[in-house]
Order: sequence, then C-alpha cells, then structure tokens
Amino acid sequence: MAIQQKLSLMIPGPTPVPEKVLQALGKHPIGHRTKEFQDLVERTTKNLKWLHQTKNDVLTITGSGTAAMEAAIINTLSKGDKVICGDNGKFGQRWVKVAKEFGLNVIKVDAKWGSPLNPESFKQILNDDFNKEIKAVILTHSETSTGVINDLQTISSHIIAHKKALSIIDCVTSIGACDVPVDEWGLDIVASGSQKGYMMPPGLSFVSMSQKAWQATEKSNLPKFYLDLKSYKKSILNNSNPYTPAVNLVFALDESLKMMKEEGLENIFKRHSRHKLAVSDAAITLNLKLFADKNHLSPSITAIELEDIDAEVFRKKIKEDYDILIAGGQDHLKGKIFRIGHLGYVNDRDIISVIAAISNTLLDMGKISCNQAGEALKIAMKDLKTI
Amino acid sequence: MAIQQKLSLMIPGPTPVPEKVLQALGKHPIGHRTKEFQDLVERTTKNLKWLHQTKNDVLTITGSGTAAMEAAIINTLSKGDKVICGDNGKFGQRWVKVAKEFGLNVIKVDAKWGSPLNPESFKQILNDDFNKEIKAVILTHSETSTGVINDLQTISSHIIAHKKALSIIDCVTSIGACDVPVDEWGLDIVASGSQKGYMMPPGLSFVSMSQKAWQATEKSNLPKFYLDLKSYKKSILNNSNPYTPAVNLVFALDESLKMMKEEGLENIFKRHSRHKLAVSDAAITLNLKLFADKNHLSPSITAIELEDIDAEVFRKKIKEDYDILIAGGQDHLKGKIFRIGHLGYVNDRDIISVIAAISNTLLDMGKISCNQAGEALKIAMKDLKTI
Repeated sequence: MAIQQKLSLMIPGPTPVPEKVLQALGKHPIGHRTKEFQDLVERTTKNLKWLHQTKNDVLTITGSGTAAMEAAIINTLSKGDKVICGDNGKFGQRWVKVAKEFGLNVIKVDAKWGSPLNPESFKQILNDDFNKEIKAVILTHSETSTGVINDLQTISSHIIAHKKALSIIDCVTSIGACDVPVDEWGLDIVASGSQKGYMMPPGLSFVSMSQKAWQATEKSNLPKFYLDLKSYKKSILNNSNPYTPAVNLVFALDESLKMMKEEGLENIFKRHSRHKLAVSDAAITLNLKLFADKNHLSPSITAIELEDIDAEVFRKKIKEDYDILIAGGQDHLKGKIFRIGHLGYVNDRDIISVIAAISNTLLDMGKISCNQAGEALKIAMKDLKTI
Repeated sequence: MAIQQKLSLMIPGPTPVPEKVLQALGKHPIGHRTKEFQDLVERTTKNLKWLHQTKNDVLTITGSGTAAMEAAIINTLSKGDKVICGDNGKFGQRWVKVAKEFGLNVIKVDAKWGSPLNPESFKQILNDDFNKEIKAVILTHSETSTGVINDLQTISSHIIAHKKALSIIDCVTSIGACDVPVDEWGLDIVASGSQKGYMMPPGLSFVSMSQKAWQATEKSNLPKFYLDLKSYKKSILNNSNPYTPAVNLVFALDESLKMMKEEGLENIFKRHSRHKLAVSDAAITLNLKLFADKNHLSPSITAIELEDIDAEVFRKKIKEDYDILIAGGQDHLKGKIFRIGHLGYVNDRDIISVIAAISNTLLDMGKISCNQAGEALKIAMKDLKTI
C-alpha cells in the first residue's frame, strides 16, 4: 500500500493542502501557554475575522465540523426550544439529528435532495410565529451531499425580520469558497471546518458568534464542558485556549490564512466560481446530468448523476487510471452519483485534468465521441478564461 | 518572533516529537473514506490496544484530552448518578467540574496537592455502599499539576470488589510512560491524549472501553452527539470514523506507535523511570524541594518547590538562557513551583541538559556551590546508567 503517491484530491474534504501549509504543520510543536503561541492565536483570530467578514468573535475548536455544529446548538439553546431546521441533504439531516438529540422541538423545512430550500417556506413559518416561540433557524449553506447552495442571504433576511430567532448556519463548504459576509447578512452563528476552503488538513473547526448569540448563551441550559464556548471566549481574550489546542494545526492555519489574504477574497471566490462553471458546463457537454438544480450549484462541489453506469465503478476507474480521488454518493445516492470537489487549493489544471479524466473514461466506455470530449475541454477552457 | 529556534520542550505537553513523526504529519492528506485510510485505522487501533495492554476497544477522537474525559462520563452515566471523584490536583478538580456539569452526584475523595489519594478512602466508601448506588469511580492516574502518581492498581482492586461501579481513569500522562496494564488491572475506561507519552502533537485523544463500560452506555441518558462513543464503535468495525478525523494526526499516530513498538513497552517504562529518578535525585542534591511525595513521583513530570525564588522568574531564565521550556505551577501554585516534563520523546541528554541548566541558574544566583552542581550531575549520571 502506498499512502503517498501523487494523489489529486477532488473530494469535498479533505482538500489538497499547499506545501507551505504542510511545512508549517510539520514543525516542532511549541508550548501552548507561551507568548509565541499567543501571538499565533492573535493573528489567526484576526485573520479568521477577515475571512468571515465580521467583527464577531470567531473561535477555534480542536475537533471536526460536527463539533462546531454541536457547539452552536448546545451553547445557545435549551431542551424543548422550538427551532426550524432546513433539510435538503445529508448535512441538513445531521442538523435535525443533532437538534433532536439535545431535545429541541424541530420544525423541518425540507426540499428534495438536489433542490434548494425555499426561502418562502422559512418566511411563512417565521411570519406565523406571532408569539415568537421560534428560537433559532438552523441550516446548511452549501449542501455537500448534493452540490446545492441554499439562498442564505434571503433566508437570513427573513430570520432578521423575525427579530427573536438566531441563525445557526453550517458554512463548512461555503466559507473560503464563495461570499459569506457574516456581518452584512447578519448571521449569528456560523460553523466551519479546516479541511475545506481553508486549504488545511482536518482537525480544527470554527464558530463565529454574534452578540445576539452570546446573549443566548446566558439562557441556554444544555450541559456542556469541552464545547462550552464561554470558556473559549474567556480564553481568547488572552489569545489562549481553555484546553490544549492542536498546536501544529494552528501553525498550518496561520500559514493558510496568510496565503488566502495574499490571494484576496474576491480572487478566491472568482476561482471557485470559474471552476464550478467549467465543471458543470463540461459535464453537460458530455451528456452527463447535473444532480443539483442548475441555478443553485455549490461553488465547492458538483454532483453528477449517472444513469446507466454504476457511479462507484466509474469513480474507482478514475482513481485507478489517473489517481484522482472523486467522491461517491452518500446514503441512497451511493452508486447513483459521483461528486467532484473543487474546493480549497485547486487550480485550473486540476479542473482540466478531472474533465479530461472523466471524458477519457466515458470514451473508453463508448459513451461519448471524441468530438464531445474535445468540446467539453473547449468549453471548460473558455469558462476558465472568462471569469 | 522566531517560532522555530532550537527549543527543548520539557513541559508535560506538548512534548517533543520525533522527526519521523513530524514528516508523517506533514504529508499530503488522503481521503478518509478510502481503503488506504482504513488500513491506517486498522493498524493504529491494533497498536493502541498493544499500548493499553488490552483487548478492549480503544477509540480515537479528534479533540483534546478533555474531550476524552467528557466522553467517558457522558457515555456511561446519567444525571443524578452517584460517583466518587478523586481530587488531588488540577486534573482531579477538572473531573469534579465535568461530573457536576453533567448533573452527577459527586462524592469527593481528596488529598492535599502534592500528596497521593489514599486507596483506603475509596475502599471505605465502596464497602459502605450496600445498595450499590455508586455508578463510577473517577480519578487521575498521574496528576500532571503536582507530579504525583496515584496508586491506581490498588484503587482499581477496590472498585472491582464493589462489582457494580465502573472505573473511569485519566491516564493522560501515564499511558506510554509507565505500566498501565488495562486488562490486568481491570480498568473500564481509560482516557489519554496524543501530546504526551504518544510522542505526537496535540489534537487526538483516546478512550479505552471495557465490555462493562459498553453495557453502561445502554443505560446512559445524557445527551451527546460528537462524543457519542457508540457511533465511534460502529465505525471502528469498518476501520472508519463517524466524522472526518484529523487525517494527518493519524499519519503521525501510526508512525509514533511504530516507534514505540520498536522501543518496546519495557524499555519505554525504564526510560521514564530512570529520567524521573535522575531528575529527582539531582533536585534533592541541589537542595531543591520535591513538591510531590517522594514515594509517589510521577514518571512523566517532576514538580519542584522554590522557597525564596519566584518560580516564574526562574523558569523564564532557563528559557532565555538555554531555550528549555519548563512548566510553571498552575492556579495557587503559580510562582511557587516549576515542573520538569520528562514525558514522551525525551532522551538522557535532555535530562542532563535540564539538570545542568538548573544547576547553572542556581549557581548564577549564588544558591549553590560548584561542588553541588557537580554532585547533581554525578548522581543523575549514575541513575541514568543503572536502570
């Protein structure tokens, strides 16, 4: 078994990591109660706020994105609280599961997998909540399981109009991939994870907390210790952590945020946008069916439905022949779709490579003509040059 | 600020990390739902069992040691459950805090900081529990804040005699430093963290669970999601993880466990034992006062009490002059003690260096004679050669 060959990671996480970030990761650790580490925490916290486009606190947790999602709920809500959960994919479902585990009273707003959530459904329920019983609206911005992006800006405007409810948003595959202006959109709690747009390995997660979110923590009665965000807030005032953080991952975070600042938010968003466009246009040219609604394609992942080919066989062939790892479908979509991650440290060549690999595999299977393969590359190239 | 000079880490965590482990850490990540990663999980799980000397499940969590401690409690106990908590230092105190946060009914067995817990106190309470109301006995094996090791073997024998109560043990600074034969001592739940005897950076924690512990999970009604160990158990059957694990830290774990196997448990324990002896004998020779009871010195950390010198000033001088980072006292011991970590990837030269640095600093302050400094080195050398 060779762990390390020349793998191209095109799954929605872990995503590829730049050499500079890996080198930072591989440094000798330092003490986490030292001035040097405080300086690091100060800088990464400042840069996390930049990335979130917010003045809110952005806290770093050692744990996966799910830890950040759980933290959002257990710190601001109490057993029996009424909440709305958006559910149009596996990660929407996870929100429902977490909310129910902690005894919340969940009103589900769902949509078919592959379709976006309807902002009007949220508006309706929030408008009808005359007694202001709804404590939070919880949803996933970019639904990684289906490649759909939900209209967070509009949904957030309805939450703000309600005045009482908090917004709790999974931005795991949208932060660092498309515009998520936390302050401008008035998002209360935003959860994300390091192995995504952050161009880092997994192991850290992030929670952005508004003033309104902090106020809600005062009323929350759910038990918590490791994920008690008040202890993180208290520590961050001293650029520190309540428990030993994953020091080397913080080295990596520092480096990756520096690289993101050098590229600039607008360029990062443009890059993801053109990669999304190139992949989806090429797929259509290859007679492949996009699983997600064409007008709501996630900037970070494209899901493709295969009709007469087993998607697991297809993606295994791409892995074997080209050492490109693409993702399969989750749950009932296993074998039916494959998903191309174009999130984080991905360049134009990676996009052209995956399109070429898919085209070649379809050619090999006798599913397309050489002309179609060429057309797919041509349209992708055009997209890559125009944004 | 230079993060990376030639720092010698002699704090109780993060501990020094071997180059091979850092190199593994700095590799490009791979997909966590792949055969390659399953192979890694299979091997690390097998080697974790070897390290724990157990046939029990040993689960890996992305999070700090505190996450593992919380997991032990919330998975096996319910609100109102009666438990005994041993408290003779900061980490014992933390157990009490976690237990209380989750609504447990805590009977405290305490001892002065610097003294070991008295096994007889546990025996008494457990013997008197005729109705078998005590659900768990929770304690810290090696108390990092004071440098005391508690007599876990004897305490565990009393827990076993009770028949009903589970043992929940923080072995964060004992696993990989001294003998903790989980099966032989009948330990139900053992929590530990990567930045200690594992010779790894922080970010992973480990929980060993006996059959009796798994049975207790069926009755536990505390809410949990990220730290729900049943989902980890279900995943481990497939050599997988319920949520995206810190892939690169698992690369590092694989490498560090291989190194530990090459050295062998007996040699690892001997190394820690001779380092403990050398440091404590040298300290006494330098007229320094051991903070912990001489018969209960932790294999991983030696705490030294200073009478007419500010311990913070002392350790800052050692850092500035020799780039050796030693730890200060925590809470009320700040300024009163300093702590020398000799845990994990520490060799005889590191021990001689720290003794020489301390001796030189005391010489510089006019606190000892040259003869004493030489005697300290001599006795340390003798200890290093005899075990």
